[in-house]
Amino acid sequence: MRIDIITVLPELLRSPFEASILKRAIDKGLVEVHVHNLRDYTTNKQKNVDDYQFGGGAGMVMSIQPIDDCIAKLKSERDYDEVIYMSPDGETLNQKMANSMSMLHNIIILCGHYKGVDQRVRDHFITKEISIGDYVLSGGELGAAVLSDAIIRLIPGVLSNETSALTDSFQDNLLSGPIYTRPAEYKGWKVPAVLLSGNFAEIDKWRENQAYEHTKNRRPDLLEE
Amino acid sequence: MRIDIITVLPELLRSPFEASILKRAIDKGLVEVHVHNLRDYTTNKQKNVDDYQFGGGAGMVMSIQPIDDCIAKLKSERDYDEVIYMSPDGETLNQKMANSMSMLHNIIILCGHYKGVDQRVRDHFITKEISIGDYVLSGGELGAAVLSDAIIRLIPGVLSNETSALTDSFQDNLLSGPIYTRPAEYKGWKVPAVLLSGNFAEIDKWRENQAYEHTKNRRPDLLEE
Repeated sequence: MRIDIITVLPELLRSPFEASILKRAIDKGLVEVHVHNLRDYTTNKQKNVDDYQFGGGAGMVMSIQPIDDCIAKLKSERDYDEVIYMSPDGETLNQKMANSMSMLHNIIILCGHYKGVDQRVRDHFITKEISIGDYVLSGGELGAAVLSDAIIRLIPGVLSNETSALTDSFQDNLLSGPIYTRPAEYKGWKVPAVLLSGNFAEIDKWRENQAYEHTKNRRPDLLEE
Repeated sequence: MRIDIITVLPELLRSPFEASILKRAIDKGLVEVHVHNLRDYTTNKQKNVDDYQFGGGAGMVMSIQPIDDCIAKLKSERDYDEVIYMSPDGETLNQKMANSMSMLHNIIILCGHYKGVDQRVRDHFITKEISIGDYVLSGGELGAAVLSDAIIRLIPGVLSNETSALTDSFQDNLLSGPIYTRPAEYKGWKVPAVLLSGNFAEIDKWRENQAYEHTKNRRPDLLEE
């Protein structure tokens, strides 16, 4: 899989891809992530990538020309499955979307910044708008990192133990139940006895029950689906 | 405001706080962000911060001892409004939560990693569990960065133009409508004539109407609230 991220703040995206699972996935050749600085594509002398809003109002708007040129260059080099725009009014990301997107080959992610992008970019170049949640961030860069992380960890071979992703929250519409590790007692707080019993049938039953109860308490909406 | 982030991957959190609005807020003294490496708090020789699950199963679990010691040290230095754990089964972050959290003084954010933390950490030390959305990430670090960004940009003085945050999506249960900048025509695609009219009463009316229609099409649930 190849992910091309277009941004006015490439430096913000450096460390998320230089650590942990994402770095390992890149090192293993399972995914390529390329970050493109939008400023390299401006044709105006001042290297501006934004301008005032037509009609007045607070906040700058990202101009169409550098975005058009950057996307056009990438598209001339290969085909893309999706050209994604990160925006709080896009389709809300969930695990099902992450699952299906993890099977794509090439995607472009455009990060909005300032007040957002010129609407003509969204009308003519974007094939999918994604939100990571109902809140506003200072730019699309963290959203792009979140989307990339959610997708990349699902690519076969990225997680060292593949069953680990299958037992994640949401994969079966159940939240994960409680987990424990050593010591069995810490400041008087004990691990549930069943987990120390060695009776794996009982442990499985307990875990299923805990996951169900936890979901019923916190997210009954997931059980209705 | 002061945010203390506890993580096993401090390097992942470097660049989000070294760029853009977050850096400016820190430079202006409007917020302090301290990242703590959990490994500095382990008392075992191997500097391990995780261990196998009781009862068996894939994925490592973060141990209670280093987390307890790190939180205890911070709490001995000052009072905290909340000790937050980032987890997909926490309360889902939205703009209203971000608004109210932007008025807190000191918060701790604990980032889960691997399979998560020992349940006793959540039972005894955590006062609030927050999810940034219904998807699983490789760790809580990006969630902590997202939460910090959503909160910090709302602190008065952080955004250069304060009205900019007030017209964001979600602040009035409406998504933002389309925005445009120069040129007025690009490859035959024109900016709506009303925005060039100079008639600000008409422009306001058009914008309100666009925001309402956009919300009705994409997120009718927001209008019902």
